[in-house]
Amino acid sequence: MTEQPTSETSIETAGHHRRRREGRRGGDATPQARGIAQLPRRKVKRLFPAMEIISADEVESIHQASLTVLEEIGMDFMLPEARELLAKAGAKIEGERVRFDRAMIEELITTAPQDFTFHARNPANSFKVGGPMMTFGTVGSPPNSADIDNGRRTGNHADYKNFLKLAQYFNCIGFISGYPVEPIDLHASIRHLEALRDMAVLTDKPFHAYSLGEERIRDGIEIARIARGITPEQLTREPSLFTIINTNSPLKLDAPMLRGIMEMSALNQIVCVTPFTLAGAMAPVTVAGAIVEQNAEALAGMAFTQLVRKGSPFIYGGFTSNVDMKSGAPAFGTPEYMKACIVGGQMARRYKVPYRTSNTCAANAVDAQAAYESVFSLWGVTMGGGNLIMHGAGWLEGGLVASFEKFVLDCDLIQMVMEFLQPLATDTDALGIEAMREVGPGGHFFGAAHTLARYETAFYAPMISDWRNNQQWLAAGKPEAWQKANQVYKQALVEYKEPAMDPAIRAELDEFVERRKREGGAPTDF
Amino acid sequence: MTEQPTSETSIETAGHHRRRREGRRGGDATPQARGIAQLPRRKVKRLFPAMEIISADEVESIHQASLTVLEEIGMDFMLPEARELLAKAGAKIEGERVRFDRAMIEELITTAPQDFTFHARNPANSFKVGGPMMTFGTVGSPPNSADIDNGRRTGNHADYKNFLKLAQYFNCIGFISGYPVEPIDLHASIRHLEALRDMAVLTDKPFHAYSLGEERIRDGIEIARIARGITPEQLTREPSLFTIINTNSPLKLDAPMLRGIMEMSALNQIVCVTPFTLAGAMAPVTVAGAIVEQNAEALAGMAFTQLVRKGSPFIYGGFTSNVDMKSGAPAFGTPEYMKACIVGGQMARRYKVPYRTSNTCAANAVDAQAAYESVFSLWGVTMGGGNLIMHGAGWLEGGLVASFEKFVLDCDLIQMVMEFLQPLATDTDALGIEAMREVGPGGHFFGAAHTLARYETAFYAPMISDWRNNQQWLAAGKPEAWQKANQVYKQALVEYKEPAMDPAIRAELDEFVERRKREGGAPTDF
Repeated sequence: MTEQPTSETSIETAGHHRRRREGRRGGDATPQARGIAQLPRRKVKRLFPAMEIISADEVESIHQASLTVLEEIGMDFMLPEARELLAKAGAKIEGERVRFDRAMIEELITTAPQDFTFHARNPANSFKVGGPMMTFGTVGSPPNSADIDNGRRTGNHADYKNFLKLAQYFNCIGFISGYPVEPIDLHASIRHLEALRDMAVLTDKPFHAYSLGEERIRDGIEIARIARGITPEQLTREPSLFTIINTNSPLKLDAPMLRGIMEMSALNQIVCVTPFTLAGAMAPVTVAGAIVEQNAEALAGMAFTQLVRKGSPFIYGGFTSNVDMKSGAPAFGTPEYMKACIVGGQMARRYKVPYRTSNTCAANAVDAQAAYESVFSLWGVTMGGGNLIMHGAGWLEGGLVASFEKFVLDCDLIQMVMEFLQPLATDTDALGIEAMREVGPGGHFFGAAHTLARYETAFYAPMISDWRNNQQWLAAGKPEAWQKANQVYKQALVEYKEPAMDPAIRAELDEFVERRKREGGAPTDF
Repeated sequence: MTEQPTSETSIETAGHHRRRREGRRGGDATPQARGIAQLPRRKVKRLFPAMEIISADEVESIHQASLTVLEEIGMDFMLPEARELLAKAGAKIEGERVRFDRAMIEELITTAPQDFTFHARNPANSFKVGGPMMTFGTVGSPPNSADIDNGRRTGNHADYKNFLKLAQYFNCIGFISGYPVEPIDLHASIRHLEALRDMAVLTDKPFHAYSLGEERIRDGIEIARIARGITPEQLTREPSLFTIINTNSPLKLDAPMLRGIMEMSALNQIVCVTPFTLAGAMAPVTVAGAIVEQNAEALAGMAFTQLVRKGSPFIYGGFTSNVDMKSGAPAFGTPEYMKACIVGGQMARRYKVPYRTSNTCAANAVDAQAAYESVFSLWGVTMGGGNLIMHGAGWLEGGLVASFEKFVLDCDLIQMVMEFLQPLATDTDALGIEAMREVGPGGHFFGAAHTLARYETAFYAPMISDWRNNQQWLAAGKPEAWQKANQVYKQALVEYKEPAMDPAIRAELDEFVERRKREGGAPTDF
């Protein structure tokens, strides 16, 4: 009478043909026998308009304020070659400070493409960036890793490879956002060579290289080319690597990052400029002010990519959040973060370029806080029209830790978002009038023909959620979500299979990496 | 260079004037000295259009399919007086089965109001139901309660009163959804009298009475009237009580529920018809099919309220979710639940009536699952245009448990949604150009005048989230979210103050309740 669920009903499952859960859009699932029921590989498309929380006039105010910042305050560009290029294009240079006419920015930003394909060595994993398409990546760059069994530890090569295996295993992960954890036990001079080879070998999804000076980014580009088995000309036609350019907010771009843009954009590879504008710390304490700063820095970066090569692929990165004003600690997955996600998307669409955003949290454990901050992030990301979603899986402690349990939990959250984004069937059969006629008032649908034909694929089957009743749950030892996540990540590592690679390509890759290692890798004084 | 947050920055807080955190819309915060920093009382308005995931044509298909169900299959009405009323109005009766012409339904549903005010004994707690307004209530109806200290137990009067105190204490809670936990130690014949008196005395927010037969609902109406100190005539002008009518899905309305509609609608009180349509169990296994059933039952209920009294306040209730097809267990906060929330809102807006929905989860513990299922629910509820949000705080285990820790955690989640719904300031001052000029490239904003003027009220300060760094968190004993929630609920009970009540009203209330108890209360054979 009141709202009590039926608690111990059950469905007869024997004797019915077991069908694979298949996406309505894809059908390109890797044919693997699996213990973990996960969604097939799927290209995710947002079918509703992205949310807007400020008006077109307000978007314009932020745009104009950003231009005022670039014109009057300017931005420090810490690489002489970059300043030369900017001076030639008409920017005003004073020491490291660069000031831009409004018109100069307005003109330069018109040539970045609205969308483009990000190419993987496995063509099935290439994806379109932009428009209504959404792709989720791994966590990137934490200095520490953690799992429940062995606790929090400094990032290392073994954990690094295991995260890559999880990234390859889970179909919902579309790309590698950077090192899922920093493999600190690899010497900094050759770390990028080993780490990028691992990405190219252990996964066949598209990946990222860090802009930490000229050598590293060039090595990254070469490894991406070799892994795809293509010529330098084809590489220049087909973006196959991306790099995140974090500005040194406020209003500063350092030499290694600028060098990254110059190398990457020149070869038509993907540059995503992401200001790290924490409101109240590196940016004004108001969300709108932080976004003005984010936008000014992103526009300056975008203009610079187009100055290096007109039409080169650019992604507008948003990473505005707030700090805890009591402690100065960064906060993520907050209401302010959600608003910044959504307004960031409005700005990116104003400039007709793809939008990068993130699945973040500031929790110390894989507890309720980690989950609510992540889902609030995903809410902002999804409704705000994010295209490239960094830190999709594994991010904990504000990015200081890559967590194995959080990785799997996040994959479940991402899959739920993917299912939410699937269109709702409303054909005559889905409307179910015949089923209601069959069952009639007071009956139940467990045995209805309509149910039996659909029950195995009708609903999303989560990897983590425990829906057992209290007695069963108590008998199982009261497991919490992180415990199931711990089991699933270990099982995924067991089930992982290294993707095939042409032996000739593998030999070329090894030869390149070993030669570069013999040459000493890259300087470590960046 | 990579995306590492600043981890141990801090802000000088001494010497600055401490301002109360105040809502931009309200200003009507209860002036209480408090340890728990919570948001002030606030009327929440959705400023963006509700989300639509199906087209207007698809809404129409669902509407037409529902009319077909009511016309061809019909619905069982298990109260003779209800069937008589329906027969007079032109419905076809065959035993308990009632079939409706499409035109009859179409005509009857036109008179329900688009919005109305739900009156509380404290006028500051009255609120408008409908349009873009959102109000969150407590959990309602679990048979068990739980906290970490004493575990899961059968619902009892002491816990019941404590939940009411929490409902009164937290400003984000706008109404009492029903018994936050069933006080099973009160005899069923007089339970409603004691429980409703508690609601009227321990809180000054609007509340619910169960439709469990004629006596109980009449007693509820009288207690609501006495508590407000108004005449029967004023009560009839001003809706001051609501009742949830759960249909016995599929397609059945039992006698106590029908009696509830007849008593409540006749006196212009609020009726919310909420079919409990779990796809795959009491409804077709497709989400669209379950919504057709939900919609048919809601339309029949709506038509019946208007037959009892034209223009009486009606709320369209949606409670469609899915079951776990492996076990038959109900699932909540799933992608299917989110879709059902949003489509339910589209249907309610089609009929121009307020929409009731819920914050649900199926987790057994206040863990990551409880949080992600709840935030996914809130995502669907908020984007889908929910007006009256039942089970806002405290719901666990698919509604079988009212949890004290979950109550507080949910209040934090609701407050975050409320903050997300606040408009973003984009005035010149908020855009922060002067702050950026003051700080300049490479600086930081902790000491900027713009920051100092705003930092205490700039961002939402959560009740639960732990943003300490790892060292501090380890030193504190690695607390998880549920532990903080445990502390906060106990502190709220200490800080709770019983709202003032006119002694004459209190005497009248006690006199009524004692007299009805002496009369034996209500029959228990319903």
